[in-house]
Amino acid sequence: MTTTPKFQYKCNDCGATYNPLEIQYMCPECNKKNTANQPPKGVLKTIYDYESIKQQTFDSLKSRGFLDLLPIKNSESLPNLAIGQTPLYTLDKIDNEETEGTILIKDDAQNPTFSYKDRASAIVSAYAKEQEINTIVTASTGNAGSSLAGICAAQGQQGIIMVPASAPVAKLTQILMYGATLIPVDGTYDDAFDLSIKATEELGWYNRNTGFNPLTIEGKKTVAFELYEQMGYQAPDRIFVPVGDGVIISGVYKGFEDLLKLGLIEKMPTIVAVQSTGSDNIARNLSNSEFVVKQSNTIADSISVDIPRNYHMAKNFITSYNGEAIAIEDNEILEASYKLSKNTGVFAEPAAAAAFGGLLHYKKHSKLDKGSKNVVLLTGSGLKDLKAVQKMIQIPAPIMPNIDNLKKIYHD
Amino acid sequence: MTTTPKFQYKCNDCGATYNPLEIQYMCPECNKKNTANQPPKGVLKTIYDYESIKQQTFDSLKSRGFLDLLPIKNSESLPNLAIGQTPLYTLDKIDNEETEGTILIKDDAQNPTFSYKDRASAIVSAYAKEQEINTIVTASTGNAGSSLAGICAAQGQQGIIMVPASAPVAKLTQILMYGATLIPVDGTYDDAFDLSIKATEELGWYNRNTGFNPLTIEGKKTVAFELYEQMGYQAPDRIFVPVGDGVIISGVYKGFEDLLKLGLIEKMPTIVAVQSTGSDNIARNLSNSEFVVKQSNTIADSISVDIPRNYHMAKNFITSYNGEAIAIEDNEILEASYKLSKNTGVFAEPAAAAAFGGLLHYKKHSKLDKGSKNVVLLTGSGLKDLKAVQKMIQIPAPIMPNIDNLKKIYHD
Ligand SMILES: [Zn+2]
Ligand SMILES: [Zn+2]
Repeated sequence: MTTTPKFQYKCNDCGATYNPLEIQYMCPECNKKNTANQPPKGVLKTIYDYESIKQQTFDSLKSRGFLDLLPIKNSESLPNLAIGQTPLYTLDKIDNEETEGTILIKDDAQNPTFSYKDRASAIVSAYAKEQEINTIVTASTGNAGSSLAGICAAQGQQGIIMVPASAPVAKLTQILMYGATLIPVDGTYDDAFDLSIKATEELGWYNRNTGFNPLTIEGKKTVAFELYEQMGYQAPDRIFVPVGDGVIISGVYKGFEDLLKLGLIEKMPTIVAVQSTGSDNIARNLSNSEFVVKQSNTIADSISVDIPRNYHMAKNFITSYNGEAIAIEDNEILEASYKLSKNTGVFAEPAAAAAFGGLLHYKKHSKLDKGSKNVVLLTGSGLKDLKAVQKMIQIPAPIMPNIDNLKKIYHD
Repeated sequence: MTTTPKFQYKCNDCGATYNPLEIQYMCPECNKKNTANQPPKGVLKTIYDYESIKQQTFDSLKSRGFLDLLPIKNSESLPNLAIGQTPLYTLDKIDNEETEGTILIKDDAQNPTFSYKDRASAIVSAYAKEQEINTIVTASTGNAGSSLAGICAAQGQQGIIMVPASAPVAKLTQILMYGATLIPVDGTYDDAFDLSIKATEELGWYNRNTGFNPLTIEGKKTVAFELYEQMGYQAPDRIFVPVGDGVIISGVYKGFEDLLKLGLIEKMPTIVAVQSTGSDNIARNLSNSEFVVKQSNTIADSISVDIPRNYHMAKNFITSYNGEAIAIEDNEILEASYKLSKNTGVFAEPAAAAAFGGLLHYKKHSKLDKGSKNVVLLTGSGLKDLKAVQKMIQIPAPIMPNIDNLKKIYHD
């Protein structure tokens, strides 16, 4: 075992670099200047020795589970669960209409806890295991918490999940069933976030918070490697990503940036940040010099965020790589959710449906280029949030079970 | 295209054989004698030309998607969804205790609609497609219906789902989101079943009902082929299977029976039928000459069945191959559900947890042989039935978000 880590951290904002054995979370210099009502500066990016990794082919990197591009020492530190390697489906038509470009659906609900967040939890948990840390805390509105709880269960670690007391019972049930410690707080997600950080400082629990622990981005980036391989060793033209606090989109960018730095792709795909108009704090602020906060209110609760924790990194990525951003209405999200399930058999959570709604918006405005390859990233299962879609559906009145009744209905 | 089908149907009870182009569902002779308050006779088994298939290796059969052992002509008739090929996890310890035998968890919640039933829906749907049938009906208490609805969505087919009006809103939501036609009936599952069969007779809709359409068994058997491969080309010693109407267990048996007939395995694994004591109509009747019905009442609603539609076939399999059967209490099922999630990170539906409860029962009574390989078949996601486990958990009271409160709790 060596004490020189194979990666270092680089501050997204001031550019300072740090040894991960000394600094685990945010850039201490930038963090000093952060205030409560602005997105924090100082989220760290994980940097590898790309020049040396470049010597290997993609397949050889893959055969070792991309260990060279991950902040862990051994694949054996990862949970004994099938994380990632989720299906990519080609969608020929939508409602019987051919589309200009090809549409590909990446179904990340097919993860152990039915959410994309397992990619992040797995890396954080494996890192903790290698550091011999047994207790991991996270603040969560639900999905990150149930993901960490499930991953900790598989790893024999202690998960501590802090949630706003208003979080839906469904997600809390899942957290408790995995045997994690659930701490509902009288307050908002931000209050839970702050408390979890104090707990890390004062009780020493390792912290998984998204937009705080740089390793969540490293976990989330793995979807880029999979897409590259599933598409025949090339990047798609566009990727529609649901955006809340800016961590998922940064993860997707980071994965493709690694591939760029390794010379495996020549061009960054155009990544489209899709938000709800009810929570558009990234899309709306991109061209502003000052960040202006607007209170969030959207049915897509996993992308409902007032102050996006990873705003600055997401903005940097979008600006540097000519990304795009749109916000769509909640009713467009609900319609997209229905269209998606009806056309594909894939029932996704509202945040994921937002990404598909973004694609539908592009399609409607003829912004999908002929022959282009467009990926929609679906981040979780629709079973995780059944309430949101109740508006879309109407359960028919029961009929008496006789065939004449049935015929009557069927001939109307 | 040839008119000689590559398979034939054989009646489980009278042994008559039929050409599937003439008979699609149950043995017409046996069916004549069936009465409403006894399990029906005449469910058909699908028989292939094993002597000719035997010429091929397992890997060559697999490379063609096991098409030789499936009642469809082309793999392209199957939905464009990742069905089956679900993970198999090895569980070293339960609550830090080593177990005598090896425990393997087959997580079939990792299917497109988060249920094992997708295996059956896929084959039924593909067969319908090849017969140019566009409308498929099924009676369901929830899971089979949401599975068929999802698969039909992917295939551009019309799914019609008949459910008892009391079915949980969660499952109905999923069905409607997939764009299927939902018909709640004022009555029981049996009423929905009978109505769906009348609809098939009078309106010509193709019928997916389990314990009626022989192809559901063919879909479900594919799990046996996967287990055989995942375990290094051998069968496990024991498989714990949740049992309600007897179709899943028959599917598992049928898959291994195919492997036996092909000479790929020498011995049928010991299959353990696990039921709830609240719905033990198979376990309780196995040694009776007459079937005695007892009304069902269990929290594991997908295995809550009064008159098991596939009783006779399940009994034949269990008797011929020295299978075993047990019934466990509902509280054992709930405890098993918690133990399973907590030890593995796999949150399963109560029926699936019953199978794990069966294993725990065997473990407790030292019935797992040293060195034996024991598989637990998990049939669906815990997210499908969150209500059942509410008894197991208690959501803690919220705390004020300050570190002193947290320390107080943590030092108690
Ligand atoms: Zn900095
Ligand atoms: Zn017969």
